[in-house]
Amino acid sequence: MKAVLLCGGRGKRMFPITEDKFLLHFLGKTLLEHQIQMACEAGLSHFVVIGNPENTAKIKQITRRIPGIEVEFALQKKALGIAAALQSAEPFLRGQLLVINPNDVFSSSAYTKIIAAAKKTSASSSILGYQVQEYFPGGYLRVNPRNELLHIVEKPAPGKEPSDLVNILIHYHNDPKELLHHIETVRTTKDDVYECALDKMVRAGHKIKVIPYKGFWGPIKYPWHILKVMEYFLDNAQPYVAPSARISKKASVEGKVVLDDNVRVLENAVIRGPAYIGANSIIGNNALVRDYSHIGSNSVIGYSTEVKHSYIGNNCWFHSNYVGDSIVDDDCSFGAGAVLANFRLDEENIQVEVSNSLVDTGYDKLGAIVGRGCRIGVNASLMPGVRVGPDSFVGPQVWLRDDLAANKMILLEPRYQVTHNETRLDEGKRRELLNKFRG
Amino acid sequence: MKAVLLCGGRGKRMFPITEDKFLLHFLGKTLLEHQIQMACEAGLSHFVVIGNPENTAKIKQITRRIPGIEVEFALQKKALGIAAALQSAEPFLRGQLLVINPNDVFSSSAYTKIIAAAKKTSASSSILGYQVQEYFPGGYLRVNPRNELLHIVEKPAPGKEPSDLVNILIHYHNDPKELLHHIETVRTTKDDVYECALDKMVRAGHKIKVIPYKGFWGPIKYPWHILKVMEYFLDNAQPYVAPSARISKKASVEGKVVLDDNVRVLENAVIRGPAYIGANSIIGNNALVRDYSHIGSNSVIGYSTEVKHSYIGNNCWFHSNYVGDSIVDDDCSFGAGAVLANFRLDEENIQVEVSNSLVDTGYDKLGAIVGRGCRIGVNASLMPGVRVGPDSFVGPQVWLRDDLAANKMILLEPRYQVTHNETRLDEGKRRELLNKFRG
Amino acid sequence: MKAVLLCGGRGKRMFPITEDKFLLHFLGKTLLEHQIQMACEAGLSHFVVIGNPENTAKIKQITRRIPGIEVEFALQKKALGIAAALQSAEPFLRGQLLVINPNDVFSSSAYTKIIAAAKKTSASSSILGYQVQEYFPGGYLRVNPRNELLHIVEKPAPGKEPSDLVNILIHYHNDPKELLHHIETVRTTKDDVYECALDKMVRAGHKIKVIPYKGFWGPIKYPWHILKVMEYFLDNAQPYVAPSARISKKASVEGKVVLDDNVRVLENAVIRGPAYIGANSIIGNNALVRDYSHIGSNSVIGYSTEVKHSYIGNNCWFHSNYVGDSIVDDDCSFGAGAVLANFRLDEENIQVEVSNSLVDTGYDKLGAIVGRGCRIGVNASLMPGVRVGPDSFVGPQVWLRDDLAANKMILLEPRYQVTHNETRLDEGKRRELLNKFRG
Repeated sequence: MKAVLLCGGRGKRMFPITEDKFLLHFLGKTLLEHQIQMACEAGLSHFVVIGNPENTAKIKQITRRIPGIEVEFALQKKALGIAAALQSAEPFLRGQLLVINPNDVFSSSAYTKIIAAAKKTSASSSILGYQVQEYFPGGYLRVNPRNELLHIVEKPAPGKEPSDLVNILIHYHNDPKELLHHIETVRTTKDDVYECALDKMVRAGHKIKVIPYKGFWGPIKYPWHILKVMEYFLDNAQPYVAPSARISKKASVEGKVVLDDNVRVLENAVIRGPAYIGANSIIGNNALVRDYSHIGSNSVIGYSTEVKHSYIGNNCWFHSNYVGDSIVDDDCSFGAGAVLANFRLDEENIQVEVSNSLVDTGYDKLGAIVGRGCRIGVNASLMPGVRVGPDSFVGPQVWLRDDLAANKMILLEPRYQVTHNETRLDEGKRRELLNKFRG
Repeated sequence: MKAVLLCGGRGKRMFPITEDKFLLHFLGKTLLEHQIQMACEAGLSHFVVIGNPENTAKIKQITRRIPGIEVEFALQKKALGIAAALQSAEPFLRGQLLVINPNDVFSSSAYTKIIAAAKKTSASSSILGYQVQEYFPGGYLRVNPRNELLHIVEKPAPGKEPSDLVNILIHYHNDPKELLHHIETVRTTKDDVYECALDKMVRAGHKIKVIPYKGFWGPIKYPWHILKVMEYFLDNAQPYVAPSARISKKASVEGKVVLDDNVRVLENAVIRGPAYIGANSIIGNNALVRDYSHIGSNSVIGYSTEVKHSYIGNNCWFHSNYVGDSIVDDDCSFGAGAVLANFRLDEENIQVEVSNSLVDTGYDKLGAIVGRGCRIGVNASLMPGVRVGPDSFVGPQVWLRDDLAANKMILLEPRYQVTHNETRLDEGKRRELLNKFRG
Repeated sequence: MKAVLLCGGRGKRMFPITEDKFLLHFLGKTLLEHQIQMACEAGLSHFVVIGNPENTAKIKQITRRIPGIEVEFALQKKALGIAAALQSAEPFLRGQLLVINPNDVFSSSAYTKIIAAAKKTSASSSILGYQVQEYFPGGYLRVNPRNELLHIVEKPAPGKEPSDLVNILIHYHNDPKELLHHIETVRTTKDDVYECALDKMVRAGHKIKVIPYKGFWGPIKYPWHILKVMEYFLDNAQPYVAPSARISKKASVEGKVVLDDNVRVLENAVIRGPAYIGANSIIGNNALVRDYSHIGSNSVIGYSTEVKHSYIGNNCWFHSNYVGDSIVDDDCSFGAGAVLANFRLDEENIQVEVSNSLVDTGYDKLGAIVGRGCRIGVNASLMPGVRVGPDSFVGPQVWLRDDLAANKMILLEPRYQVTHNETRLDEGKRRELLNKFRG
């Protein structure tokens, strides 16, 4: 059985995170590596990766590092959905297939369940149905009592769901040719060609078995979804301190914490897990990392910085900052006193504008989302939910209320009054204060 | 003997503190409870409380919790001074009375002294005379050589004081009917009816004994007087750590410190007494509480916050703040980097505008005074002596130089320059810095 | 042999540092005292100090404290170079002379080398030639194969240097009369009379021996050169903790650190040497002093302050500041949250305007340079390389991009929007947050 990884799509709602979702790092590895590892553990070793012109080189570099797998590469030139992706890879789609969206995060049981089910059933296909507890705006699966697919209903209105099963993309296909054939017959202008093809297969008499799944499912649709995925990985990590990591005796490392190679934790620093600190990173004097935080590699959480429930990329530098419920991509630096605020004065949920409409993030505590290569000046204040585009600079003392596009520099234009200063300070008073201070 | 507590007045100069002064909390109890406790220790158990329509329910709730006392309630509908208060309570004023202003703070010796004196003397009344060391703008007591009152002189000019005895309101009256009778005969448009009645009693041949008193007297006329009263309570507290309090082994608790129930002191926090930390409050990582500070209940002195010589109410949240010589009422939150400055650049005394005139606070170190329910944004700067009215919000990065009324929101209107950013950062330099940092 | 110390000049490029360079303190002593001490160790005990009207009293006060030396004072009324200085001191210039510029810092080997060489040679004069590794804009020494001076070439273009030997002012003269005679014959409008006189002596047949020197040479031409000199002194100091110094058991003192009399290091402070802390100074709770930092006497590095590679004068106060690669003269105070930034957003070298032209400091990490008697308000941000003139005040929240002259006060003129605040906070939410925080 081959696993087909759909790596050709582009996230449209992920600004300012420009990296493909499956290339985000968790616990020191890309999400792609985690997917491949889970697939391997479920018994697979042959992969077809469908990439796009921008990411294929990176993907090859990553997959080359993984021992014991065989990978074929296909190129999807335009980002036109699952069906187009599969058509791009047509020459490689022989035998049984497991089609996977590597941008969503599942527990390994998703893989083992569908493979086990596929082996037992005579159905043409088996697809995973996520059992939702509350409304989710996705494709719902109408099934018969034997859990066989009848129809996929795209985004029904709340209350109109045909079942509690949402279609998530870990799909087993016994006969790819049949699937591709049905894809070719679909006539639609929307991007649900693949789902229409499944419907057509059902109508043509093929059985598509729905495998209910209740484990973790972490779709990354908006950038703040990274936090949930981060929590999942931290919850499932094993506490670990690399032999090369060095922790000051005056530091505190509590709870479930992973310290990767060469990490240094300096005096009076506190890491209160769950937390992950990537290779070569430094947790500086008096720094506090707490409540599900994930720090990439080669980063410095410098002196007197608090990182709370945040995802920090590689090569990032902080000192004397507050970073709450924030997402910071690689290669960013923050001047002393810069604050990533996470809570509105009115304590309301944080909303973010996406494609000209406001999206409620569902969080009342959410900080900034900062793209890669940004620099934030000293004493700047980033408001909850603000997004800073990649390679942009935010000047010192700026109160950033609105999103900043990529490749921008925003500077304050303050007005000052400069006058003659008559005051001379009282040396006696100063000496007295010092003595009082000394006690 | 009944103690009559005058709880009906309203502080006119206490903005932005809206709570009645006797309802302020010290060491976990209202000032009212402290007053009643001292009266009980001096042998009293019957109380007449004269409240107003706004506070009577609260007072009842408080007095109900106190075992072994009997309380009668009278209602003063308008805030028209001591005489009107006593007239409101006329039906309850039977037998010997001890009339007390519960808004001023005295040591328990004030109670025991006047009660002991009242038992020994045949005078109609006994009143406490505070022996001042320097001029105080109050009512001075002219007395004869036997310390019997001749006349009360209201606010004499400095140098014109008839004695060193200032009238403070712990007054014993042997015959309330006689007092009420004289009150009725006073004709004045000012609010000194009660004092005029005492003068009349003297002229009518009644003896009013003046009991000199040198112990603590803490009148709360302006909000910054709360600091002096706080110091008094902290000086007189016994060091205590509640059994349910938890102190990290890496924290330091030094000097006279009271930690109430369930207090938590986290790693590397330092509490340098005298200090009081109220029930359920948290002193966070690296926080420093020092030099006479008083934290209410359910408050969080979060990460990297310094509180110096300040009175903090209940349910307040700080993180990464400097709070110097400040007063913060209940239910306030402070964003990271917000500073309550306590020292003018020119090191002059802090002055505050009250009723259109500047009042010298007498302090060269005084911070902000923040009413209840306020929120202060990240990196905001509150200037020394600034008062923030209740339920007001101060935006991020605001430099608050002037008082803010109640129910206001103040936001900065900054101007920005946004340009294209050409700079790309040098990865090699960053790597080099990290290596240098690692040493 | 007499040592002649040229103390009459005035640094023109040292703004905002107004103190004479040789009066700057290092390791608790003025540079002048260090110079005299090195001269004494090399065997000298007679000094001629040529001062100016402003500094002579101070110099006398300092030299009086030094036991075992004999000092004669001459007064240079105008600052017209070395030759004029020597002429001012003519009556004292008898016997052999060692002419020293006390504003440059040399290692003691410079003294011992030239004195040893002077004793051995029959030359009229011996002068030190600093062996440069790269181009330095100074006077180069053209020599013959026996290292005898042929000619001094003032500031040759790079690549046009006649040797790798730069003239530095530790010059031995066997016959001062001869030198003074040649000085008198020079006719020039420039300030190189002394160098011309040496050239003349050579042309007249006198031998001037050049002694090559490779040890430390720290000229202080611009204020940021103080950092290099500071590093030199710290590198050459012996680790030392005064018996009267008190270090909290919870503090960390690592590396080569000198703690002078009565220094106090409070809980959780970290000093990572090389570092010097002057007498009576306090390193407060959680403070971090690191990477070659030099703190004067009677200063307070207060709560949560980071001082990195900085020179701090006497009587300075910090709390909750970041001070990176900065120079702060005596008697300065910094409000909480003020930041002395040390790194441009674009990571370029820091340039400073001197006499209407930009000078590249050679540093990509350089903070502010603050003259004596300044006060910096809370949450102010001083940009890299900014210079604040003495006795100037920088208001709270000011973003200081440009230099500020002496005796100025700069205040922000912000614009605010004040509106009615409708929001009332949710007590339940707050309680829930507290419980979550308590874990």
